[in-house]
Amino acid sequence: MTLLYEGKAKKIHATDTEGILRVEYKDEVTAGNGAKKDYIEGKGRLNNLITSKLFNSLKQQGLESHFIEQISETEQLVQSVDIIPLEVVVRNIAAGSITKRLGFDKGHSFEQPLVEFFYKNDKLNDPLITDDHVKLLHIANDDEISTLKAAALKINEALVSIMDQVDLRLVDFKIEFGKTTKGDIILADEISPDTCRIWDKHSDVNFDKDVYREDRGSIIDTYQTFLNKLEAL
Amino acid sequence: MTLLYEGKAKKIHATDTEGILRVEYKDEVTAGNGAKKDYIEGKGRLNNLITSKLFNSLKQQGLESHFIEQISETEQLVQSVDIIPLEVVVRNIAAGSITKRLGFDKGHSFEQPLVEFFYKNDKLNDPLITDDHVKLLHIANDDEISTLKAAALKINEALVSIMDQVDLRLVDFKIEFGKTTKGDIILADEISPDTCRIWDKHSDVNFDKDVYREDRGSIIDTYQTFLNKLEAL
Ligand SMILES: Nc1ncnc2c1ncn2[C@@H]1O[C@H](COP(=O)(O)OP(=O)(O)O)[C@@H](O)[C@H]1O
Ligand SMILES: Nc1ncnc2c1ncn2[C@@H]1O[C@H](COP(=O)(O)OP(=O)(O)O)[C@@H](O)[C@H]1O
Ligand SMILES: [Mg+2]
Ligand SMILES: [Mg+2]
Repeated sequence: MTLLYEGKAKKIHATDTEGILRVEYKDEVTAGNGAKKDYIEGKGRLNNLITSKLFNSLKQQGLESHFIEQISETEQLVQSVDIIPLEVVVRNIAAGSITKRLGFDKGHSFEQPLVEFFYKNDKLNDPLITDDHVKLLHIANDDEISTLKAAALKINEALVSIMDQVDLRLVDFKIEFGKTTKGDIILADEISPDTCRIWDKHSDVNFDKDVYREDRGSIIDTYQTFLNKLEAL
Repeated sequence: MTLLYEGKAKKIHATDTEGILRVEYKDEVTAGNGAKKDYIEGKGRLNNLITSKLFNSLKQQGLESHFIEQISETEQLVQSVDIIPLEVVVRNIAAGSITKRLGFDKGHSFEQPLVEFFYKNDKLNDPLITDDHVKLLHIANDDEISTLKAAALKINEALVSIMDQVDLRLVDFKIEFGKTTKGDIILADEISPDTCRIWDKHSDVNFDKDVYREDRGSIIDTYQTFLNKLEAL
């Protein structure tokens, strides 16, 4: 009765408290905007634990998000926001779509982190858009675009340093932002191996959804190993 | 012996004078980055006459380009430049790729003209890129990006007013810029029905390559009618 939205990876439930949502992480994994899809038991738990851990670490570094607290193995409470329909991608190293799109070799290190906006619109297949498109579509104005980019780069710095401590390289990640009722822009959604690319510093092992996209092993083992590393922090 | 480059629509020849090139407009037409291709007698002449006419009109409005003079039915002399590998697109009305990409209805009028950069790279299929990509690829720096956008918008204003005088609507167009040896950025390449979308103000007739893309009639009749309108100016 309290289900507000069911997405590909999470269910969003209302709670008794206005402005607070319960996020339930699902045992489902998809790739290519739903083209590939599987039920994988235990995956929801791992992404919930990992996202909770990372939002907590960001908070310790002074970076706020919608995250309130983890309340079970698969659930967390978050602040309700109006999601800004952008997938904000930060890239430190070339992998995935940018290698096909712009011809960068996989593994190429960018001189500085790159921020990209993709229009969160399943029907249009989440196209890359420019700042002018963001304004044209009335998604955000100039000030908000600057705020989003600056926040994305700060979050990147914090995450890079977290990963670095456990000998991992943060290749890229996708985040979403939302607006609070006060109009503040805050980090929302999740930060998990579903939404990041994470490479081992010393081997060619990776700890992210590419394992699933490319059928290269168990997503549960992969995400569990990643969580173990984070818990050693 | 003097052929320097043969593209899809033009041949570029050296001349006896350093810094001056002879552009020969070909009787060929392609669409979809060469996927569709035809030989159409008389098409080179029309694009040469139209481009010459438009570059001259821009000059009268104080907008410089690489254009020096038309020297035959199919040839013109231009200043040699280092082409900046961007297809700079200006859109007044939604048509073509942006309707598919962002879901705008064909015919939607933008609140203000939109400038887009596409990376001129046939192998990558001329992808849309953001300002940050332009910098990352070392195509242009911040100042140059501003110069390109401002110039594109000025050229748009001038072309809109030219078309308006002959009861046509300039929907969108693609231009290219180049750097002179002095480092100035100037308008280069061509402005023709191959590179513009031009709609009649009062009917649903159009005067551009969409006639060819969509197999809707004779490209020669279409371009000739457009040229006649321009010559009435
Ligand atoms: N704090 C929040 N308030 C409201 N909506 C949120 C919040 N955090 C995330 N969301 C949205 O909830 C949905 C999460 O479910 P998910 O399965 O990831 O969806 P999707 O399939 O759209 O990616 C997304 O649409 C996301 O934008
Ligand atoms: N003034 C100029 N100096 C040097 N190159 C130019 C100049 N104007 C246009 N060009 C280039 O000449 C080529 C024109 O041929 P075209 O048939 O249009 O090529 P393409 O198939 O690459 O579009 C393009 O690559 C264009 O960038
Ligand atoms: Mg999601
Ligand atoms: Mg060309």
